[in-house]
Amino acid sequence: MFPVWHQQPSDRSNSLSLDLFLFSAFFLDQDQFENLDKHSQWGIDFLERYAKFVKERLEIEQTYAKQLRSLVKKYCPKRSKDDEPRFTSCLSFYSILNELNDYSGQREVVAEEMGHKVYGELMRYSQDLKAERKHHLQEGRKTQQYLDQCWKHMDNSKKKFERECKEAEKSQLIYERLDNDINATKSEVEKAKSQLYLRQHMAEESKNEYAAQLQNFNSEQWKHFNVAIPQIFKNLQDMDERRTVKLGEMYRSFAEVERRVIPIISKCLEGMVTAAKNVDEHRDSGIVVESFKSGFEPPGDFPFEDFSQNIQRTGSDGAIGTPKTEGGKADPKHAVGRTKNKLWLFGKKPKVNNTPVPWLVPCRAL
Amino acid sequence: MFPVWHQQPSDRSNSLSLDLFLFSAFFLDQDQFENLDKHSQWGIDFLERYAKFVKERLEIEQTYAKQLRSLVKKYCPKRSKDDEPRFTSCLSFYSILNELNDYSGQREVVAEEMGHKVYGELMRYSQDLKAERKHHLQEGRKTQQYLDQCWKHMDNSKKKFERECKEAEKSQLIYERLDNDINATKSEVEKAKSQLYLRQHMAEESKNEYAAQLQNFNSEQWKHFNVAIPQIFKNLQDMDERRTVKLGEMYRSFAEVERRVIPIISKCLEGMVTAAKNVDEHRDSGIVVESFKSGFEPPGDFPFEDFSQNIQRTGSDGAIGTPKTEGGKADPKHAVGRTKNKLWLFGKKPKVNNTPVPWLVPCRAL
Repeated sequence: MFPVWHQQPSDRSNSLSLDLFLFSAFFLDQDQFENLDKHSQWGIDFLERYAKFVKERLEIEQTYAKQLRSLVKKYCPKRSKDDEPRFTSCLSFYSILNELNDYSGQREVVAEEMGHKVYGELMRYSQDLKAERKHHLQEGRKTQQYLDQCWKHMDNSKKKFERECKEAEKSQLIYERLDNDINATKSEVEKAKSQLYLRQHMAEESKNEYAAQLQNFNSEQWKHFNVAIPQIFKNLQDMDERRTVKLGEMYRSFAEVERRVIPIISKCLEGMVTAAKNVDEHRDSGIVVESFKSGFEPPGDFPFEDFSQNIQRTGSDGAIGTPKTEGGKADPKHAVGRTKNKLWLFGKKPKVNNTPVPWLVPCRAL
Repeated sequence: MFPVWHQQPSDRSNSLSLDLFLFSAFFLDQDQFENLDKHSQWGIDFLERYAKFVKERLEIEQTYAKQLRSLVKKYCPKRSKDDEPRFTSCLSFYSILNELNDYSGQREVVAEEMGHKVYGELMRYSQDLKAERKHHLQEGRKTQQYLDQCWKHMDNSKKKFERECKEAEKSQLIYERLDNDINATKSEVEKAKSQLYLRQHMAEESKNEYAAQLQNFNSEQWKHFNVAIPQIFKNLQDMDERRTVKLGEMYRSFAEVERRVIPIISKCLEGMVTAAKNVDEHRDSGIVVESFKSGFEPPGDFPFEDFSQNIQRTGSDGAIGTPKTEGGKADPKHAVGRTKNKLWLFGKKPKVNNTPVPWLVPCRAL
């Protein structure tokens, strides 16, 4: 994760070898690069993590939409509408299924847009970001390597200068010894003197070389810390800020994708409420009436079948007289006119609007 | 399904036995009951089918909410907030997760309310409806059975009447034969006459019984078709209308449950947009600055290390003189004062608001 990196300034009053000090300076530089290396990588990882989150979110949305679609399909009427009764309770249910279908269409839109406008965009951006980061870090390394090289040249020339000075000192001691030696030959003294001049010359040359290298290094070091590195850090900062801006935009897009469908979702739900209000129990009763009504009347009274017609009156008390109910022959028409009450199964013909329709209608004329 | 039931009136001008006619009358009645039996069962089935639809709908919603909750949990920060960097891009993402959590809470509310206010209500209502339907159909059957019984009694008495009349006719013939037979004894004639009177009397009795039964039956039949059956049909109609009304209410409830959460869902999405707007790239750069800043300055110029100090001047041409760069002893403090440019890694101390903060700040005083 993210180390909160603080360093305490070390105590400079102690003697430090320049080499050690140099190392720590480069160490600092290296550390900073490492920090920014890590931070910029973290930035990309975070962006990709957010992209993954969006991907999982849209997959949840897709599943949701798919399940809703299946549900609608399962409950939709299978047969042609002509076979179906026209009950308002049925028609309203099918309207509701229609609205639910549109509703799931909107959820699909949300999933699609999350896919293109957020996830797709983030993944594309992430690739660009990786390439840019790689480029900046490479620039940093190149700069560092160049400075290292300058330092190496400078250090080599310094070491050479040191060696040459030592040689010159040695030559000096040899010459002085011979110069003060009464037993030494002039030839020996002259040789020693030549050698000394040579060594002093070589020391001088290497001093100049070292001086030049040092000047060059110091100049390059100044440019490194004051121009090159700040520029690279600035580039990394710009890149990081753009990443942050992008994240903010993508967060917004993610929410807007869903906000945009809310009015349409509301319309779907309103449609369902309208369908619910269209359920009309009286109308549906009327349909039952229409479906079931018949032309039949209720049977009239059964007539009396007088089997005693053939029995002769013999004048006895037990006269077979008129039965206590109405007589008359058996009537196949079965007393159509007898009962005034023609009410059968259904009431009045159903009107088009909300008048209550009882399940009793006058029979049709035979 | 639903047969559209039409019957053509049959031709009554043909002679039909009363029995056949009677059967068809009861057949009609039976048919109507069967239709209403089927229709009311269909009504209950339709209601339960809608309830099943609601159940499946709410299960989809539960799954959706659960998946969203899991998603939030997966991406929530695991460690304590103190370990986390305070980048606005991170904080905003966590705000968004919070809003998504509330969002899934709302979807859970939708599922719960669908469960209680719609599905639970429908299943409870369905039980009541089944009981009520059973009761009405039983009433119908009882009424029918009662009428059947009356008819049976009437028919039995009619058959008895017919039998008695036949017996009376037989007796009549026997008597007339004996009366006209010169060889018959008076005793035989008297016996036959007594038998005749007896039979006539019995026929008369059974005629009266039949007449009474017929009257009763006709009266009960009238009541059956004009009072009892219409009442039962009315009860079934009321029940069916109430069912339809209930369905309409449940359709509405189903939609309202979801409509109610829309404002809260909108608030969640607005919260996400607000979080998105709070992403501040400059602030985040400031945090990078704060995290990484060090007290170190860039190293100053490296001093010239003059190894030629110990070399004596001998008056030669190759005099080791002052090098072409600045001299001076090695300074452990490494020329703090040398470079005026104190810029290191970070710029000015970041302000609290939106002023652009470059990743370069003045070093802290050593």
